[in-house]
Parts: sequence; C-alpha cells; structure tokens
Amino acid sequence: MKRYVLSVLVENHSGVLSRVSGLFSRRGYNIDSLTVGVTEDPNTSRMTIVVKGDKYIVEQIKKQLNKLIDVIKVIELKPESSVYRELILIKVSATTKQRAEIIEIVNVFRGRIVDVVNDSLIIELTGDESKIEALINMLEPYGIKEIIRTGLTALERGNKVIKEHN
Amino acid sequence: MKRYVLSVLVENHSGVLSRVSGLFSRRGYNIDSLTVGVTEDPNTSRMTIVVKGDKYIVEQIKKQLNKLIDVIKVIELKPESSVYRELILIKVSATTKQRAEIIEIVNVFRGRIVDVVNDSLIIELTGDESKIEALINMLEPYGIKEIIRTGLTALERGNKVIKEHN
Repeated sequence: MKRYVLSVLVENHSGVLSRVSGLFSRRGYNIDSLTVGVTEDPNTSRMTIVVKGDKYIVEQIKKQLNKLIDVIKVIELKPESSVYRELILIKVSATTKQRAEIIEIVNVFRGRIVDVVNDSLIIELTGDESKIEALINMLEPYGIKEIIRTGLTALERGNKVIKEHN
Repeated sequence: MKRYVLSVLVENHSGVLSRVSGLFSRRGYNIDSLTVGVTEDPNTSRMTIVVKGDKYIVEQIKKQLNKLIDVIKVIELKPESSVYRELILIKVSATTKQRAEIIEIVNVFRGRIVDVVNDSLIIELTGDESKIEALINMLEPYGIKEIIRTGLTALERGNKVIKEHN
C-alpha cells in the first residue's frame, strides 16, 4: 500500500468536514491523517488528506470527493514536486542532568524547546515524516510522556496554485 | 464569542473522525479548526478542536464528546497553561529583487524558506495565531498566491499528561 497525499479546496460551509470524513468512513477508505485550515480566501478552506491504498482506490476517492457539492478542486500532491510538512509537539522526561544532552539533539534537528520544567521539556519540530520519526527514536530512551501531531500539510513546489489545475 | 481549545484522546478506530465531526455539524457547533494525529500509543489518536462559543456551549460539547464510545478523555487547554502552535505554508510572489527583502522579514519571524523559484517562494512558519497573522500581513503587499495551514495543535505546559486528568 502506497501513501497518497490529496489537497482539497472546499467551500467554507459548516458541515463540510463531516461530509468529507463521512465519505471516507462509509466507504471504508482509511485516512492516515487529515488537516484543515482557512486559506488566503476566507470563503474557502483547504484540506490535506493522507490515504493509504492502491492507485485504483485513490482514483475512486478523487471521483467521490469531486461529487461533493462543497468541493471546488482535488489534486494529488506527489512527493517529488511538493513540500510535505508536519508539526509535532513532544513532552519528554528530562532530569536537570539530561537537559543539555536533549537540547543538543533538538538543535541537530533544528527543533525548538518551547517549555521547560524541573523534570520535563516540550519540543516543537516541523519536518517530513522521516525526520519526525528520527527525532522520536532519539528521544525514546529519556521517556516520552506525550506526543501531539498535526498530520501532514503540503503545497506544490513552484509558482502554480491549486486553482490553476484542470 | 470566546475561543476554546479542546484536546480529545480517542481510540484509533476507523470512523472516529466522522463521528466527532458529525456531532459538531448535527448540533450546529462551529469548528474553527480540527487536527488529528497518532500519539505515543499507536492505539490512540489525539484531536485538537478549536471552537468559538460561550461557556455553556463548550460544556455541552464536552458532555457530548464524552458520550461517544471512542472518546477516552476530553480536556480544555487554557492559553495561560498551554503551548498553542500552528504550522503554515505560504506561497508568495517574489521577483529576484524582492527576494532578499522577503527573506529578511521571514528571518525576523524565525520562519524558513522551503522552496524558491524564479518568481515565488514557499515559507514555513510555526507559531500562535497572532504571530502567523502578523507574517501574513507583512507578506500581503508582495502578493500571496496560496496559504495552507494545519489548524491549531496544543499541549499542556508542565509535566502532567492528558491521561492524568480526572
């Protein structure tokens, strides 16, 4: 099963998230992650949906999405021509002695420390999935207390925008 | 109307996103943003839901969420005791002459340039809503081509984790 990244421009109506996620659950399509946020135009929102499946399933999903009344445009963002990014916050146990060591690791990953208390830290990191997994692996020995991640967001490289796609 | 940030720990079942977003749309509650991602435990996901409303509505939402079978825990993350972060990618028009100027602005905001072509740039920024709005305002004169944002994600400051809440 391959991972596909779909970028979906939608009308900013209430219930659109429920209709899109309902389509996936009714048909048994597996969503790996979904993010949604407003765009440069307050009337539209844009979703990034990551699905695992084969080429046939992804074509079906695109067709079904295009049938929804709130959906303006669906494009697939391929890894070679897109920027993929995710934001993660990690709360990790850290004694005073371990703190410098952890900060060093975080600096290598160009992450940021956004909270410190006596015995734990919160780290902020953005990157693609492999960078994020690598940092998590490095921090595991210290004891990961909590992780929260946004799911993937993505934009096509170059100057073309989603509305210019056929 | 105030903004409330809810952090919701859920069982990682298919259809949970559809059930949660369906609850909001059926009852007419307005979701400002929603992010969902896996946690340190692969059996659970964690959602960050931002809603606008009054105290009464938020209490109702919490009650309704707690009734859903997949929901393990719901907590409210208050601004004074939490880290709020969002990730945004902005594609902005930039002639060769304007490029240095824009990079200077991005550096002030501690953002990153993640793609450059002849006549445009992609900028990555994380921060709270006010920082992100400020950068968007600074970039508007150059011509914003596309914006994609993840929606807010959040974690409680200090060493307490969501499961330790009553």
